[in-house]
Amino acid sequence: MPETATLASWIVSNRIEAVPEDVRHEARRAIVNYLGCALGGSHDEAVDIAIRALGPYSGPPAASVLGRAERFDPLLASLMNGISSHVYDFDDTTPKNYMHPTSPVASALFAYASVNPVSGRDFMEAFITGFEAEMRIGNAVYPAHYDVGWHITGTAGVFGAAAAIGKLLGLTLQQTVWNIGLAATQAAGIREMFGSMAKSFHPGRAAQNGYSAALLSQAGFTAGEHGLEGARGFAAVQAASYDLSRITAGLGEDYELRANTYKPFPCGIVNHPTIDGAIQIHHEHRPAPASIAAVRLRVAPLVLDLCNQTGITKGLQGKFSVYHGAAVGLVRGKAGIREYTDAAVNDPEIRRVRERTTAVGDASLTEDQAGIEVELTNGEKLTRFVAQSLGNIHRPLTDRQLEDKFLDQAALALPSAQAGKLLEQCWAIDRMEDVNGLIETAIP
Amino acid sequence: MPETATLASWIVSNRIEAVPEDVRHEARRAIVNYLGCALGGSHDEAVDIAIRALGPYSGPPAASVLGRAERFDPLLASLMNGISSHVYDFDDTTPKNYMHPTSPVASALFAYASVNPVSGRDFMEAFITGFEAEMRIGNAVYPAHYDVGWHITGTAGVFGAAAAIGKLLGLTLQQTVWNIGLAATQAAGIREMFGSMAKSFHPGRAAQNGYSAALLSQAGFTAGEHGLEGARGFAAVQAASYDLSRITAGLGEDYELRANTYKPFPCGIVNHPTIDGAIQIHHEHRPAPASIAAVRLRVAPLVLDLCNQTGITKGLQGKFSVYHGAAVGLVRGKAGIREYTDAAVNDPEIRRVRERTTAVGDASLTEDQAGIEVELTNGEKLTRFVAQSLGNIHRPLTDRQLEDKFLDQAALALPSAQAGKLLEQCWAIDRMEDVNGLIETAIP
Repeated sequence: MPETATLASWIVSNRIEAVPEDVRHEARRAIVNYLGCALGGSHDEAVDIAIRALGPYSGPPAASVLGRAERFDPLLASLMNGISSHVYDFDDTTPKNYMHPTSPVASALFAYASVNPVSGRDFMEAFITGFEAEMRIGNAVYPAHYDVGWHITGTAGVFGAAAAIGKLLGLTLQQTVWNIGLAATQAAGIREMFGSMAKSFHPGRAAQNGYSAALLSQAGFTAGEHGLEGARGFAAVQAASYDLSRITAGLGEDYELRANTYKPFPCGIVNHPTIDGAIQIHHEHRPAPASIAAVRLRVAPLVLDLCNQTGITKGLQGKFSVYHGAAVGLVRGKAGIREYTDAAVNDPEIRRVRERTTAVGDASLTEDQAGIEVELTNGEKLTRFVAQSLGNIHRPLTDRQLEDKFLDQAALALPSAQAGKLLEQCWAIDRMEDVNGLIETAIP
Repeated sequence: MPETATLASWIVSNRIEAVPEDVRHEARRAIVNYLGCALGGSHDEAVDIAIRALGPYSGPPAASVLGRAERFDPLLASLMNGISSHVYDFDDTTPKNYMHPTSPVASALFAYASVNPVSGRDFMEAFITGFEAEMRIGNAVYPAHYDVGWHITGTAGVFGAAAAIGKLLGLTLQQTVWNIGLAATQAAGIREMFGSMAKSFHPGRAAQNGYSAALLSQAGFTAGEHGLEGARGFAAVQAASYDLSRITAGLGEDYELRANTYKPFPCGIVNHPTIDGAIQIHHEHRPAPASIAAVRLRVAPLVLDLCNQTGITKGLQGKFSVYHGAAVGLVRGKAGIREYTDAAVNDPEIRRVRERTTAVGDASLTEDQAGIEVELTNGEKLTRFVAQSLGNIHRPLTDRQLEDKFLDQAALALPSAQAGKLLEQCWAIDRMEDVNGLIETAIP
């Protein structure tokens, strides 16, 4: 059977009851992480501008944007959720194919559920279905697709949003085949946009376009039957080489949610082991910032290619400075969004430590490893070696660490009691009669 | 200077006063042809379905859809105009790169001008600017881009719509560079959708997404600076080989509008010389259909690969039957949209002639040539050889033939007096104070 039909058939028939509990728990973790990111980014300038530009063209303003008071039609709300949740590049990542998989799917689902009654059970079923669909399509075209310059979060993400919304709409098999076709013919987003607001536009547009595809196919708008495997279908057009069997092999048995990871720090991932080690030293020894005489880092050589910025004054530059990462870890014991603001980069204590930090490349280290030596003014030396980076697939964030990350970001949009309530609702989402109860908690 | 910046600079500075009159006249011809197609397709099922699916999500319904009474926000109206104008595949074509260039640009412009005051001068300036921009980008990536399976009308079309709307918005150079980037990162549409409604969705979405790109960039939504030429920009990602110099060479001197062509018949282009010859015989000899004993065609061998359908009962099949084309030409002396309905295919007189038609492939003929021999029941033979297909670049439709095509299609949506008035307004569009006067004539 062609892959489009096989995948469509699974999308139609998949039931949450068939999904193992560990996968469902990973889905809840993905949603906790997503909601934190969406709240944290909800007042970024990119969201403000997109609202200013496109808000006047919104349909009846019934749908919520996470973290904001404005309402829009659910298609436009999907776009805004997608931008806010990805704008700090702090959302989840799958090392298998470099997707940020939750944003396109959840951005559409939360918009949909803010205007339609959706039970927690159905929401989770649709989320898991969309997540698996997009990841498998991403796996099939990775790495050729990514390497040539596609932003796979946008291109594969549109399939995830289409599948998830189509699942809630109860599309038939034929409609689901068209839905996949309409997603395929809207798959877009190029890596040339990295470093600009347009990057965060990709998961947003994927959410909005996937949602549209589901609505169109439901109404009978026809599309090609072989959107994925056709001679001029998604895979052939967008990848010089691909393996379509990765779409269907183990479908309903192997779950891609198990391959998901959550970034602990909102900066270049190669800085993470250094920051992690610095935070460990902070918590174990609590060195007064003024007592730090020198910090010596040993890092994989790639770190110095990518994150060697010194003399910095902007928050964005801090993301590409391993020295800044070490300094905030040692001084503040954390590295959240507020450690990457202009104010944090110019904080005198942080700057002082940053300017005393040096790094050498060491080819014997992997990119998941770092060594730190802190020399205090009294001559004492505090050292730490990180062998596996926090947040990678071998050392995932604990639920508690995810909660801390969530609360740190949610505080940018919500009072702390409300953020705490939202977190509780997330963990219990499966049992909600109507997910809109949770969405209302996510609005200031 | 990088191609994105060069093109952006030309988009910002281009003035209609610098455009030669023959190019301006070709722009008017493109608009006449476009409006006829948009009216002719305005009540197709694809438009009805798209309206049913997406209409409920429309913003304030201020903008017109050509040929229809409903109003939507201008972004959604752009989509609908794009679907209707391309759904019969009867809109203009550029043999240089196989684009249907007017639909993405004009679909956005007419939606915009239905809610904003736009003079005929400014409309034409924006149209020509958008047309040239998209065609040059299409030329740069053709043929590798098309051959791998991209529907270039969608992928290059989004740049045309973005440039045209950006021109009317008066974007700065920086905003225009972002606008091109936002178009590049939304370029989509695959040929796997051919034969389904999703094909006509491509110019519609290109119009809508290009329009959005212009609004976003105007509001300050940033994008990569090298959307076209970057290492992970449009050309590198979407074409295995390309020539960026085709974007900028002769910009403002050589006009791609001069390479535009208009199909005389709404069917596979390889049937056109046969139909043309049959129509000529009809007008010269007026043979009674019942007097036709046999029709013998001599055609390029490709015609029999593509358009060899016999025993047909559906209008859509008629488009792929050279026999049906010969029959309608001989019986009706025309081949418009109404000659490709189910009713026409099942018309006893047409069926009778079709069933008496045979064809042989002749490798000495080009695809622009055909020979026809009609044998009458009295033994008389009527013959015709067509050496250049009507509508190709060497034998373009005359203004009068374009008018006939326009009126034939407009009759599907408008009373004939109103269609006649619209045609007059089209030819005089440059001098209109507000193009909305013309748009109102295009609404039933």
